[in-house]
Order: sequence, then C-alpha cells, then structure tokens
Amino acid sequence: MGKNVVIVGGGFVGISVAKKLAGTSFNVTIVDKTNHHLFQPLLYQVATAALSPGDIAMPIRAIFSKQNNVQVILGEVTEVDKTSNRIHLKNGSSLPFHYLILAPGAQYNYFGNEDWEQHAPGLKSLSDALEIRERILLSLEKAEQIIDPEKRKPFLTYVVIGGGPTGVEMAGSIAEIAKRSMMRDFRNIKPDETKIYLVEAANGILNGFDEPLPEKGLQTLENMGVEVMLNTPVQEVQKDGVKVDGQFIETPNIIWGAGVKASPLIQNIGVDTDRIGRAKVEQDLSIAGSPNIFVAGDAAHVKDDKGKPLPGLAPVALQQGKYLGNLIKMNSSTRTPFRYVDKGTMATIGRAKAVADIRGFKFSGFFAWLLWGLIHIFFLIGFRNRFRVFAEWTWHYITFKRGVRLIAKKDDIP
Amino acid sequence: MGKNVVIVGGGFVGISVAKKLAGTSFNVTIVDKTNHHLFQPLLYQVATAALSPGDIAMPIRAIFSKQNNVQVILGEVTEVDKTSNRIHLKNGSSLPFHYLILAPGAQYNYFGNEDWEQHAPGLKSLSDALEIRERILLSLEKAEQIIDPEKRKPFLTYVVIGGGPTGVEMAGSIAEIAKRSMMRDFRNIKPDETKIYLVEAANGILNGFDEPLPEKGLQTLENMGVEVMLNTPVQEVQKDGVKVDGQFIETPNIIWGAGVKASPLIQNIGVDTDRIGRAKVEQDLSIAGSPNIFVAGDAAHVKDDKGKPLPGLAPVALQQGKYLGNLIKMNSSTRTPFRYVDKGTMATIGRAKAVADIRGFKFSGFFAWLLWGLIHIFFLIGFRNRFRVFAEWTWHYITFKRGVRLIAKKDDIP
Repeated sequence: MGKNVVIVGGGFVGISVAKKLAGTSFNVTIVDKTNHHLFQPLLYQVATAALSPGDIAMPIRAIFSKQNNVQVILGEVTEVDKTSNRIHLKNGSSLPFHYLILAPGAQYNYFGNEDWEQHAPGLKSLSDALEIRERILLSLEKAEQIIDPEKRKPFLTYVVIGGGPTGVEMAGSIAEIAKRSMMRDFRNIKPDETKIYLVEAANGILNGFDEPLPEKGLQTLENMGVEVMLNTPVQEVQKDGVKVDGQFIETPNIIWGAGVKASPLIQNIGVDTDRIGRAKVEQDLSIAGSPNIFVAGDAAHVKDDKGKPLPGLAPVALQQGKYLGNLIKMNSSTRTPFRYVDKGTMATIGRAKAVADIRGFKFSGFFAWLLWGLIHIFFLIGFRNRFRVFAEWTWHYITFKRGVRLIAKKDDIP
Repeated sequence: MGKNVVIVGGGFVGISVAKKLAGTSFNVTIVDKTNHHLFQPLLYQVATAALSPGDIAMPIRAIFSKQNNVQVILGEVTEVDKTSNRIHLKNGSSLPFHYLILAPGAQYNYFGNEDWEQHAPGLKSLSDALEIRERILLSLEKAEQIIDPEKRKPFLTYVVIGGGPTGVEMAGSIAEIAKRSMMRDFRNIKPDETKIYLVEAANGILNGFDEPLPEKGLQTLENMGVEVMLNTPVQEVQKDGVKVDGQFIETPNIIWGAGVKASPLIQNIGVDTDRIGRAKVEQDLSIAGSPNIFVAGDAAHVKDDKGKPLPGLAPVALQQGKYLGNLIKMNSSTRTPFRYVDKGTMATIGRAKAVADIRGFKFSGFFAWLLWGLIHIFFLIGFRNRFRVFAEWTWHYITFKRGVRLIAKKDDIP
C-alpha cells in the first residue's frame, strides 16, 4: 500500500507534481474547486472572444485518465490538520496524507475595497472571463442602438485597472476588438469613438520586465489608441464608472488587474505570510515544522537569488511542481533547495505585437509575437487544445475575425 | 430610399430572408433577443459536451458584416402595431416597416406546469445547453465521491422526457457519455450503474418518422442501454426526481423535450392560433388582413399537401425564409402559395448510429450517421464553424473523447 500524496489545486503545480509521480506506488489525489485545469496565460483571450473556454481548459480527470494512481475530487478544502495529517472538505469528508502539496493559487486583491469586485471583475476563472466577454459585447450592442453620441460614449469606454501583463494584454485586445476587428459589423459606431484607458498607480507598466520592454510596451499600446494613465491610483470604483484623481470616467466596462493575493486557505495553516497572504516557505517549499507539507505556485512566497520574491507566473509554478514531484519520489534525507531558472518573460499587446526578454536577450514586435504564440501552444495540455488554438489563431490572423462573440445570458436585453 | 423589411428572429427564417435580399434596395433590420444565430439541430451536442457554444453559434452581425443593407438590433419586441406598421421594443424605441416577418421561434411547453421548468430544463438556447451540461457533469462528480452505491444511484440516473428527435438524441448521447466515453475517467463508478430513462406519453418514439425508423430507433436506444418507457405520461416533476405512473425515479438530471409552443409574441398580433400557439397563416404565410405581415418557422401553423401541419424543423424554416425573400423581392400582384419540399428527415442516436428517411428511401446505421454528419456540417453557417465541428467530430470518433467537459459555474461545489 503506497503513501498518500494529496494535492490541493489542479493548476500548473498540481498537474506537474502528479505527472512526475506517474508509475510510482504513491496514491495521488488532486482536489480542486473546479473540474478543469485552466491555462491561465490565455484566459484574457476568452474574455476578448478570441478563444472558447474549451480551448484553454481541460478536465483534470481527462489529463490523468491513463494514469491510474491519480484520483480527482471536485471539492473545496476547509481545513488542514497538521497533527493528524488530514485535510477536511466542505462536504464533510476528509482525506489522510503522508505528503500534502498546497497550490490553491491566487485571487484578485481589491485592497480592502471588496465591494469594487462586482463592478470591476478580475480575470482568474472561466466564469470571470465569460462575464467580462458578455459585458464588452453587450456594451457594444447598446452603443449601436443609441443615436446621441454623448449618451453612447460610456458604452464605448473601457477602463483596465493595473499595468501588469494581464492588464496590458486586456487593454491591447480590447483596442483590437473595439477599434478594429468588430467595427465593420456595427453600422453606427465609429472606431475613433472608442476610448480605452489603462490605469496604473506606479510610474510605469510591465514592472516585472527590464527596459526597454516596458517602454516598448507603452509605445505600442499608445499607437493602438490606448490611453495609459501612469501615477494614477484609483480612488473609487462604481457601477457606472471609475474615479481617478479628480476625473470620473463613466463606463460599465471596468476590468480589474491591479493585484492579487494568495488563496484564503493559506491563512488557516499556521504559517508566516507576506503582505499579500503568500506562505513564507523553507528552501524546499515545505512549511516551518512540517517537512511533509508544501506550498507552491501563486500562494507561495519564494525568494530568488537576489532575495526578491518570485513572480506568480506559469513557469515558476511548473518548475516548483516538477521539483516537488522529484523530491517526493526520491525521498532522500537531504533535500536540495528549490532554484528557479528564469527562461524569460513575455507579453503580447496585440496582433503581431509582443515584448519578450529571453535570458537578457530583449526583443519585441512580430518575431516576439510569433515566439509567444509557439511557446503558449507548446505548453497547452492536450493535442486537441493545441490544435484548436493553433487553428483559431491562424484563422484570426488571416481574417481579423474574433470567433467567439456570444452573449449567452438571457437577462440584460436592451 | 428603399422600403423597410423588419425581421423578428435571427433563426433559419430570418437569416435566409435577409440573405435573399442582398444587393437590393430594401433596408433590412433583424431584431433578436440574442446576438447570435444558433444552429439548433446540434444544440444537444453542446449539452452533452461534444461541441463548444462557439462551434454552433455565430453573431448575426458577423453573418451580415459584408451585406450593407442589413442592420442588426439586440432587443425584444413587445408589440406589433398593424395599423401604423411599427414594432415596439422593450427599450422603448420603435421601428417602422413596409414588410414584417415574424419568426420568433418556439419555446418548451410544460402544458400548464411551468414550475417544472426549473427542475427539467428544455433545450432551446445556449444557456439551456450549458445548464444541462453542468448538471450532468456535476452529477457524475458527486457520484464519484459517494461510497454507498444506493446513495449514489440518483446521481447516475437520467430522465429524458419526450421521445421526439431531441429526446432521442439527448438520451443517446447521455448513454454514450455515461456508459462509455467518460467512464474511464471515473475510478469509482461502474458503467452499468448508470440508468437512462426515455419517458414518452405516446405508444412510440420518433412519431414524425415512418416505420421502420421509429422501430429501428427504439432498438438502437435499447441496445445502448436506454430504458424507453412508452405510454408513460409524466405525473409530477420535482427537484429530486420524476413521478411516472406510480413509480418515482429519483434523480437531479431531468431533461424536458416533451413539446413546444410558439413564442408568446404571436398571442399579441391578433391572429388565429392553434393549440400550441402557432399563427394560422395564409397560403403565402401572411396573416389574415395584413398581406405585408408574415409569420414563419416554428411560430407558424402551415398545412402540408395532406392537410397536416408542417413540423418545426430547420428545412421547413429555411424554405419559408427563401420563399418570403423572393416574394418580397418580386413584389408581384399575384403570390404563388408556399409549398414545402420534404427532402427527408433524420436523427442520430449515437456514435455511428442514425436513422434517415430521404424521400421514402429509409435507412439507418453507419451510412445514415455519416450522411447526417455531412448534411449538418454543410448547413452550418460559416467556414470556421464547419471546420471546427468537422475537426471535433473526427477527433472524437477516433478518441471517443468528449471535448468540452467544463463546469464553469462557481456555486454547487460538493
């Protein structure tokens, strides 16, 4: 009877740990609140009607249908009992573990203004993405029906809060949709009526990147017609607009990308956390006093060689997952610390526009965009999704058309 | 300044009328409650996780982006004013028309038991299909976690009410999912635990078809493990099950396909209707006393040569749409009556299983299924959707995998 490895979260960490343990005697159980692994880096493309939810998500069960030592449970963890080595689920059941990997991810951080969330959804889950997609499409439909240009202005205005990769990618694709690809379908709206604001509190965007990429990104966005407001903290988010230093921008289309915090689960495991709630872990990603309990991915605070915490990116999560998988398999008395190998960072801004920093070699434009596309397709899980995304992007690049412009909700009909 | 043609409903009728009027001087306006044309014949495949919403739906605007005399309005018609020739929308605006085509379609008919709808959704819109998909997937996830076979039985039980094409296709694909393609992904559930009931009040299924097809359909369903209950009217539908003569079948998975009625809009236009609310129209599909107002598609009661009303099928709607398009274009004083040319009927029951009746030539099995597939791909609108559906079907025929098994809703976590 093999030892039990319980993994909380079916993200990049969870999937790669479980895969590393293929063919071993461990009984692996993955617990997740959703039934699917989500390829987060492309989620903004679902929100902007470029891809279908089914293109970037895959049932966790399906990923492991041939790996018999993996069991998948749809459920929510409410408590971690470190003394009896059990986790408890919302539905009352509990699971014993020899090893526990906590990779519950992060959620958007409204810095104490949680009531802003209803007006300015973040982009973390498929339902977030579909919600944002419906808002944008519905807003265009409403604008099309309003004759008075002043009255329709709010419905042609978009505010993206936060200048990180997600914010930049959202602003870029909204500019594409609203100023270009969709416009031919609307008879009354003129592209130059559309206003897209990217609001950032700091004095620059893409702060994770080294120059000249943030500068290049800024230029590209501005060339696409995005108005980037730097040093501009948000004062108030309301149903019908955003208040930034004095100015009030009237719009129902507000997207939040300003910051994240670790899943609340981390608060309840008795471990030091940083200011955004990430667990401060040991060099082997275990938590102090419990060498068999690990925290990884967006919920973990891990320092790099320069002593600054690693960013919440897919490559970090993947490498941590592989590291933990090997560590559990080896089960050696001495554990070599986790070290992150930075293979580079990149972000797309729009059609044939991207910025990349591959091991210090910085470039942008068409080639960066092509590379971005290939890498993302490569890291997608499953042949079907790779094929679908590749076909969709090709289609899209040739036709400029957005494939998935559907409003499925029944309410909100103008 | 050309005459105004207003079309209510972006279904098969609406789209084909508007296409017929391409390159004319008519100003065409399509009003629909959703932003997309939905390929209803494949909706059950979205409900059973075979296709994505984006594969069978296309924004109405996108269909006409190159046809400049077509305008699309997302809105709901509240009133038709026959004297002033205007329609009024929910948002207060109104549109004048010279010609009006009412093709609002049908909705499910609960025969006075409207409270059953919440427990037994029908299959008419994308949101219906996604709702049903989530129920089925969630039910399997719950069953997987219940150890006691008696307790998990309800979650492995499915009741489809109504033995028409929709009901048969739903029951068939559920049998495929729940007894076959998905089962390898669930460690605790055995395929033979699954029970699928098809409940029909009449003494046979597929009543629209001539023998031997209904018989063949029945056999196929039973071979697939579907329990077909004939002469079995439903007495009560509750949240947790269905009551049929004495017996109570316990399950949260209830799908309604028992009957339809015309959109309520038809009630308010002052025209004779049949018992399911369809407008009794003249031979040219116009309504009595208003030769410039037409009703077509599922909302119209049109008799065939034998005097029995035409079924609510896509080919009927398509032919009526083309007929009306020509009639308006010609604008001749004498109107030739509409005649439906029956090119045949078909239904799929499962993988490589279908029944077809092409001009009296009746056949079933693999060839019928192949033909069914080709015809449906041919009638899909847009190269992109044809390509995606074709690719998806090929993939799934080879792998047995259902592509789109996603639970996007956040609530209902066990």
